[in-house]
Amino acid sequence: MRAAILAIGDELVTGSTTDTNSGYLAQSLRSIGVDVSGFFTVADDEDAIAAALRRALEDAELIVTTGGLGPTSDDLTTASIARLAGLPLDLDTGSLAAMEDRFRSRHMEMPPNNRKQALFPRGSTILPNPSGTAPGFICDIVDGSSRRHIASLPGVPREMRRIVEESLLPWLAERSDGRVFGSRIFSVVGLTESKMDGLLEGAVDPDEARLSFRAAFPRMQARVTVSALTKEEVETRLTHLERAIRERLGASVYAMGDVALEEVIGGLLREGGHTLSVAESCTGGLIGHRITNVPGSSDYFLLGAIAYANEMKSEILGVREATLAEHGAVSEAVVGEMATGIRRAAGASIGLSTSGIAGPGGGSIEKPVGTICIGIASDVGMRTFTHSLGDRSRGWIKDMTAQLALDHLRRMLIER
Amino acid sequence: MRAAILAIGDELVTGSTTDTNSGYLAQSLRSIGVDVSGFFTVADDEDAIAAALRRALEDAELIVTTGGLGPTSDDLTTASIARLAGLPLDLDTGSLAAMEDRFRSRHMEMPPNNRKQALFPRGSTILPNPSGTAPGFICDIVDGSSRRHIASLPGVPREMRRIVEESLLPWLAERSDGRVFGSRIFSVVGLTESKMDGLLEGAVDPDEARLSFRAAFPRMQARVTVSALTKEEVETRLTHLERAIRERLGASVYAMGDVALEEVIGGLLREGGHTLSVAESCTGGLIGHRITNVPGSSDYFLLGAIAYANEMKSEILGVREATLAEHGAVSEAVVGEMATGIRRAAGASIGLSTSGIAGPGGGSIEKPVGTICIGIASDVGMRTFTHSLGDRSRGWIKDMTAQLALDHLRRMLIER
Repeated sequence: MRAAILAIGDELVTGSTTDTNSGYLAQSLRSIGVDVSGFFTVADDEDAIAAALRRALEDAELIVTTGGLGPTSDDLTTASIARLAGLPLDLDTGSLAAMEDRFRSRHMEMPPNNRKQALFPRGSTILPNPSGTAPGFICDIVDGSSRRHIASLPGVPREMRRIVEESLLPWLAERSDGRVFGSRIFSVVGLTESKMDGLLEGAVDPDEARLSFRAAFPRMQARVTVSALTKEEVETRLTHLERAIRERLGASVYAMGDVALEEVIGGLLREGGHTLSVAESCTGGLIGHRITNVPGSSDYFLLGAIAYANEMKSEILGVREATLAEHGAVSEAVVGEMATGIRRAAGASIGLSTSGIAGPGGGSIEKPVGTICIGIASDVGMRTFTHSLGDRSRGWIKDMTAQLALDHLRRMLIER
Repeated sequence: MRAAILAIGDELVTGSTTDTNSGYLAQSLRSIGVDVSGFFTVADDEDAIAAALRRALEDAELIVTTGGLGPTSDDLTTASIARLAGLPLDLDTGSLAAMEDRFRSRHMEMPPNNRKQALFPRGSTILPNPSGTAPGFICDIVDGSSRRHIASLPGVPREMRRIVEESLLPWLAERSDGRVFGSRIFSVVGLTESKMDGLLEGAVDPDEARLSFRAAFPRMQARVTVSALTKEEVETRLTHLERAIRERLGASVYAMGDVALEEVIGGLLREGGHTLSVAESCTGGLIGHRITNVPGSSDYFLLGAIAYANEMKSEILGVREATLAEHGAVSEAVVGEMATGIRRAAGASIGLSTSGIAGPGGGSIEKPVGTICIGIASDVGMRTFTHSLGDRSRGWIKDMTAQLALDHLRRMLIER
């Protein structure tokens, strides 16, 4: 099946909001074998919506729209689709009751214009919205012997995603000549997309499974999707593929599913009964920020120090002036003393430290921009690392250093 | 003039990259009076590009494309446009020389396939690319008496934006029936879009100027655009409007132009000869991270402490246990002692501190999730603040607390 995606909204076409829905939909549809030929974006304008739908129907059997299902007069998606399909709008009493319940449970009266959100082109399949008022729907466009589908979803990403996972993908999967789809996501650290592609060469038979990558720097994911005639067969094949892929990627896979590295580290620290302290120089607080993005991190994260000035490395962390003078602030000797110093100051079981040249200034021939050092002090002793990240932007170097530091910490925790 | 935007790239249609170029272009074009009717997104496929261009030309006089100008065989934009326009490709020796210079200055040899990036449809206006190898170009599509334009830009956002500002907007402005356009951007903190809209009601005559907003949380911008017959008149009117708008928004405008709050603070600290230290609890390192995103921040940023555990607030920052017991960790009394403590520990002229309940756990009836306190210690004494941000997500509360803390610091620095 070929699909096109249509995002609807004035806020998109004026550039005041960035559309992330279309990319998410493209990934989701591809994961069950539906190819996406392109995206369209139009304003909340009935003629523009109708023209885009007509164009999209020229070469797609499925159009997925997002946006324009709200209760106000500038929400025109449902009306545009009904007119294109030549169908009247019917009230769905079940959807109306669910909406009224939603308002009642919040001790609010439903405004009369919300009733509009329970109107659908006659014969539509309704896709319930457990997180908001506007349900989605699928309307068939019948033209002679051809039957095409328009699936309409609300524009709020959280609501849209849940409807896709719970209703749209299963509906589509049922129509895939009886085939069932399933996929697994590998969260990966320390490999580029091309490196990963190389490592996985030959691991996945393209006739049997589909492999795709998603990079949201510094995060990286691989996804493998299979289809089969039964759910059981899908699971068997995914389990087999997961084993084959993990064998190739090794410890670079830090989690199955869409999980942040700091969440995995939080789990490992908690399991091992560890406490963490961090001394940051070039990352400037980013590691502490990521660690504390995890709810409940106060259970294991005791203290961070951002020792940006050299005197602070000495005074607060106890780095010896001789070490600074002899090796320079960006050295394994200094990150070692920083890690030891913060571990002692916090009374934590682990001390993690970073020092590096984030640029654009401060580089030298011996230690160019992008030279970074990482230290980890714990009861199994000291580990230090040096990486040369190259002359990249300051933001990139900070992001990459934090990612590498967290990954070294993770590897130390799983090897124990 | 009516425009459509076409984003080209496999990585967009598969969902592995989110397109931010189209929104940026829509805002830029609107700012000089060009209306954007919609966006298209297609894969690196010559037929798909040609079909999208033909559709877009049906109701737009200008199409702006991004992407597909690279040196490899899957970069097909230039060839597709030339074929649509029925024009041969000519080598532009100036562009080729600039490309060769670029490689030479990096001590690299230009790979032969980069030569392709100096080929343009005959008669095109070339838009130089100061930040990369691929220049943009504008190709005219003449059909009878009508003349339409396709402007092609590289897909790398940084390169694309610079070409838009330096070449495309001036080229378009020249063609706007002799009118000259100009705009000013107001970087704003502490106001929502609707609050700003209310404050500015009646300040800008819609027949005379165009006012638009852009929110990229926690950043917020207003932009005012005017057109007139001469550059001088544009400047006069913008100066008048800037005064009127600044009068309404007051100190909420922290900078003219697209500038981050931490850059403004860096400038103020440097001008005043101040040094900064930060003690973070609920922001967990985010303030340090933002401060150190500014190149050269090591000149004024001495030390940060992420005192997540209560014992650390006492041991490292010298917060008295009696204060913690009496007022609780989230209190103006505690942030006051934290700010004093970090200022003393660092020997800095200013100490900034945060403590709050970022959630989802940890709230109480008296201090619900979203209760946050900020302290600033300096030679003009102590200032403390409490804000109730409401039961929002952990990430939102961290972002907003950091933004408020930096804004309180800025206001203290400009009032001195």
